Amino acid sequence: MEFSSKLLENAVNEMSQLPGIGKRTALRLVLHLLRHPEHQTAQLSHALQKMRSDVKFCKSCYNISDVELCEICENPHRNTSIICVVEDVRDVMAIESTSSFKGLYHVLGGKISPMDGIGPHDLNIIGLVEKVKSGKVNELIFALSSTMEGDTTNFYIFKQIQDYNVLTSTIARGISVGDELEYADEITLGRSIINRIPFESSLKI
Amino acid sequence: MEFSSKLLENAVNEMSQLPGIGKRTALRLVLHLLRHPEHQTAQLSHALQKMRSDVKFCKSCYNISDVELCEICENPHRNTSIICVVEDVRDVMAIESTSSFKGLYHVLGGKISPMDGIGPHDLNIIGLVEKVKSGKVNELIFALSSTMEGDTTNFYIFKQIQDYNVLTSTIARGISVGDELEYADEITLGRSIINRIPFESSLKI
Repeated sequence: MEFSSKLLENAVNEMSQLPGIGKRTALRLVLHLLRHPEHQTAQLSHALQKMRSDVKFCKSCYNISDVELCEICENPHRNTSIICVVEDVRDVMAIESTSSFKGLYHVLGGKISPMDGIGPHDLNIIGLVEKVKSGKVNELIFALSSTMEGDTTNFYIFKQIQDYNVLTSTIARGISVGDELEYADEITLGRSIINRIPFESSLKI
Repeated sequence: MEFSSKLLENAVNEMSQLPGIGKRTALRLVLHLLRHPEHQTAQLSHALQKMRSDVKFCKSCYNISDVELCEICENPHRNTSIICVVEDVRDVMAIESTSSFKGLYHVLGGKISPMDGIGPHDLNIIGLVEKVKSGKVNELIFALSSTMEGDTTNFYIFKQIQDYNVLTSTIARGISVGDELEYADEITLGRSIINRIPFESSLKI
């Protein structure tokens, strides 16, 4: 790609550092900014820089927050004895949008993945174990993705806390509501048969 | 989408103003920046702002440039008597990458499109007509996309300049090199038969 302007080339190169944005897409985005009023670019740049420099991670659950303690941790109506363990901020947002969980979260910041050089000490595991040790937690819900890395992380945490008096559970895996059985993959379908629930309790939901 | 941070929400909202970037993609991009060193975000923001505020359009051909007159217009080895008329900066880059054209360009900045409220006066047409009137141009090559808007724009310019002594041509449309005939659309295939060229001249390319 030959550029007639160094400034344009720079902007395209920086933009194409973002995941999933190739050079052509970056050029399309940058030319869009060029066709629109200058304040749009200024607002975008300012919002990104401000976010990057000022955003905090909640000192208790490591969720993204503008203050020391996030809204969820600070909410007196949440059940502080149940903690849902998730990988990422997006998982908190996804679970919050269901309105089905009124406990607290703990954001690990990833999964144990030796292939990517991520060990237990790169994740926010120590804080979680401390919470369990304090004796104020009744239940941990593991809500990591069901991959080898997710399972490894679950098991690692489980080993750390098994001697303490805490219930552990994992979110249910099964056929999505509304899905047809014939199109489900066999692992999911198999799990959903093994982990079947009494019909009466399905009526309560 | 419920955000735990106003700063994050702002950054995602600004990012999702870009074409083809939805809220989820914007969140993925912003979280990527958050996981990477602060200077990456600073560089991106700076490059975008600098580009938006300092980039110029060549005063002759309206190509993007860092200086008053772009590299192509200023190059003494280019043939100033042939002008290739294109919609967009990307078209200049595409044609330049072929190394098949040694004339100059004229970037219109779009196509006449009444549906989008773009009339001839929103495009850089006057400057082009002036160049033709000056008598220094022997040939105009129309290289707009072959849509109704592109054809309208070609015809509008043609009407403006037909009384002056200038050749006009349009880039060849046909089956792409290496493509199989059976998969070509009938309009392209039809045009490529009507506009067939002598076999001997195809050997020279």
